[in-house]
Amino acid sequence: MLAPERKGAFLPKPYLSAAAQFAASNDTPRDLLERCLAAIAEFEPQIGAFVHLDIPAALQAADRSTERWRAGRPLSPIDGMPIGIKDIIETADMPTQMGSPLFDGYRSERDAASVVALRAAGAVILGKTVTTEFAASEPRGTRNPWDPRRTPGGSSSGSAAAVAAGMLSTALGTQVIGSTIRPASYCGCVGFKPSVGALNRLGSHDYLSQSCTGVLATTLEDAWQVAYEIAVRAGGDPGYPALSGPAQAPAAKKPQRLAFLETGGWSAATADAKQGMQDALARFKAAGIEILTRGSNAKVAAAETAIAGAWPVSTKINEWESRWPLNIYRDRDANKLSKRMLDRLVHAEAMRPADYSLLLEEREMVRRIYAELASECDGCVTLSAPAAAPIGLHSTGDAAFAVAFSLLGVPAVSLPRLQDDGLPLGLQVTGFAQGDAATVAVAAWLGHADAQ
Amino acid sequence: MLAPERKGAFLPKPYLSAAAQFAASNDTPRDLLERCLAAIAEFEPQIGAFVHLDIPAALQAADRSTERWRAGRPLSPIDGMPIGIKDIIETADMPTQMGSPLFDGYRSERDAASVVALRAAGAVILGKTVTTEFAASEPRGTRNPWDPRRTPGGSSSGSAAAVAAGMLSTALGTQVIGSTIRPASYCGCVGFKPSVGALNRLGSHDYLSQSCTGVLATTLEDAWQVAYEIAVRAGGDPGYPALSGPAQAPAAKKPQRLAFLETGGWSAATADAKQGMQDALARFKAAGIEILTRGSNAKVAAAETAIAGAWPVSTKINEWESRWPLNIYRDRDANKLSKRMLDRLVHAEAMRPADYSLLLEEREMVRRIYAELASECDGCVTLSAPAAAPIGLHSTGDAAFAVAFSLLGVPAVSLPRLQDDGLPLGLQVTGFAQGDAATVAVAAWLGHADAQ
Repeated sequence: MLAPERKGAFLPKPYLSAAAQFAASNDTPRDLLERCLAAIAEFEPQIGAFVHLDIPAALQAADRSTERWRAGRPLSPIDGMPIGIKDIIETADMPTQMGSPLFDGYRSERDAASVVALRAAGAVILGKTVTTEFAASEPRGTRNPWDPRRTPGGSSSGSAAAVAAGMLSTALGTQVIGSTIRPASYCGCVGFKPSVGALNRLGSHDYLSQSCTGVLATTLEDAWQVAYEIAVRAGGDPGYPALSGPAQAPAAKKPQRLAFLETGGWSAATADAKQGMQDALARFKAAGIEILTRGSNAKVAAAETAIAGAWPVSTKINEWESRWPLNIYRDRDANKLSKRMLDRLVHAEAMRPADYSLLLEEREMVRRIYAELASECDGCVTLSAPAAAPIGLHSTGDAAFAVAFSLLGVPAVSLPRLQDDGLPLGLQVTGFAQGDAATVAVAAWLGHADAQ
Repeated sequence: MLAPERKGAFLPKPYLSAAAQFAASNDTPRDLLERCLAAIAEFEPQIGAFVHLDIPAALQAADRSTERWRAGRPLSPIDGMPIGIKDIIETADMPTQMGSPLFDGYRSERDAASVVALRAAGAVILGKTVTTEFAASEPRGTRNPWDPRRTPGGSSSGSAAAVAAGMLSTALGTQVIGSTIRPASYCGCVGFKPSVGALNRLGSHDYLSQSCTGVLATTLEDAWQVAYEIAVRAGGDPGYPALSGPAQAPAAKKPQRLAFLETGGWSAATADAKQGMQDALARFKAAGIEILTRGSNAKVAAAETAIAGAWPVSTKINEWESRWPLNIYRDRDANKLSKRMLDRLVHAEAMRPADYSLLLEEREMVRRIYAELASECDGCVTLSAPAAAPIGLHSTGDAAFAVAFSLLGVPAVSLPRLQDDGLPLGLQVTGFAQGDAATVAVAAWLGHADAQ
């Protein structure tokens, strides 16, 4: 649906279709990596998606993977997948700098649980992708592949930009407000934010209670596979069930009923974005899917009301939970924190434990109300962002359509199916807690059906 | 109730009673610290409670506190409290070695959230106390103050031993199975394990889902105050309400009804321990408190049945949740992990995510059944351990009476009110999730009433 001349500029690197050729000996992980490296050579100087690349190590890993495929013994379906790691997730052989000058050159000398899992599955870790400061709001210069004047979104800025530009097959992101869904929307790739807790975050500088590790990918199948391979090896966060579902991407499943949620974002959406959403809904209806709305269904109306305040609640929860370590960073060198981050700390330090308890209660209440929708429909659809990526690199854009599902802790997928101003815009499909496989199955149907 | 000649060997250092004298200018934090240092000089060579002491820094901190008290401006009720930090909790100015040779000399260069809070409250951080390897099972040589042939219990071995021997007023511990309640019982001090999540663990090498930070202290009032001062400044774990309650220890409150829980430990308890418990129950009855038992109350019987399997469920949960970082430690240098720890990892790596999900469901079911008791009684009582500290330093003893309340995530207090073989044994008082203040109020009544 995007202007062909733009789409042609990038050669996306879907992985599983390539791996099918590995098995048939028509392609190799080494060749796939070389194609990624060619894209990096071409686009990275302008886009700035990486903070660190380790090409020699990646070439070695790809060669070992090539040998395994030749021997008919790949470690997993993602053996040989070129993947990037958001730079708040630790890697033993690369720095982890968290988008903060406080961590310039910092090396933890260990792999995060998710990275241990990816290596065990044979993935080729090509580099660390740019994150905003501590995966929050302060951008770090990455440009949108579709228009370098525009933000790629954040906080998983580099992950989305690199995947969209064909420099990687997939990349890990995280999301606590809109950090996977928004950049996926802006960059025109797939974003998958699983249920909260579904992918083990130990070893990631990410301990906020509604945050989770997500995946940016060219295809939904690739996104699922990465999440699955992490979950099956590393599990979820302590205290949470891991992502569960089939060992290959769930088969597309046509939903009978979908709820269209305006969320807090609708009023900010552009006319083009709204029209794109309405057109998509019309296509779904034409395919025989019943669309529930706030006007037609009381539980949808209740959910809309409940999630309307998602942004301030999420923001305050994150602020309180960020006090440590921001307070020790401030005391160490306040000049190395952005003004945005210092402001966050000031807000946090004005809060009391009882304020936070009330926010947790409010979050639980919103989650209960949304969960009621599970008896009404097979999932929800909405925009992934109110507009195409805005011009300017000073902000990562508006997360108004993503934040509700972060607060809810439910699975969300952004499909690069819409456009605004000739630029990518995501169609967001969301589901219910721990219903990751069902959500992906619905998203697969909507994405594929809509593409035909 | 302990043999006076033994009790007399130590001069416990209750803090709040000393602080009352600070306010009256009859005592100072410097003097209190000096008395702790005298005890350290006398007992530490034999007991081995500390892995690191920073006496010059503590003296400076005590002097600053002394000045604040003189000026009538203490930072908090615990300004000047000599406190030890279990060595899995990070401290900016001391090593954090986690009872593991993998972390010999390791310095994180940052304070954990709880340590930030303690410093802000004016507490005097005197040193790091011995922990078993990664706060699990492998002991690290600390001896029981009452009998150096015996274990002090674990994993908060040094914290309990140091407090019991009067080397510290209080110390931080943690508990995921029995690591606060058991050493408190063995060493004859107060142990307070709050509701899971009640005290912020960020910056502690402790990310297991049913673990929590606890306090070892000479008095229950001191234990409450430490927990309160942490909670009010640092909050709880992300996603959990912080410990809540009054700014000074809750007033003693006579319970109307208590449930006596045998737990999985009763069959292992010595005759002396059982007799001590029965005598205590008789005293409570004589004071007019109704005692519910598995024989007299169906919900108590249901709770007993539910918690009977607490040990294997807790162990497996901990194993799964420990895979990372144990797997990276093993790959780095397996010789620096104990056989116990390597065995734990082997068990963990034989598990699948679905096994863990079932364990979480079982834990939730047990929690729901226990929570039903809240309508029946004001709390539960049982032993803190099946016997006095066993002879030998190769094991930290039997946590059979503590583990259920770790699985349940409920507040638990060990009071040094019983004895076995002439050695300390704890009376355990437990409550309901987030009911920390109510539990402490009941424990205060039982402890004080029983002492009269």
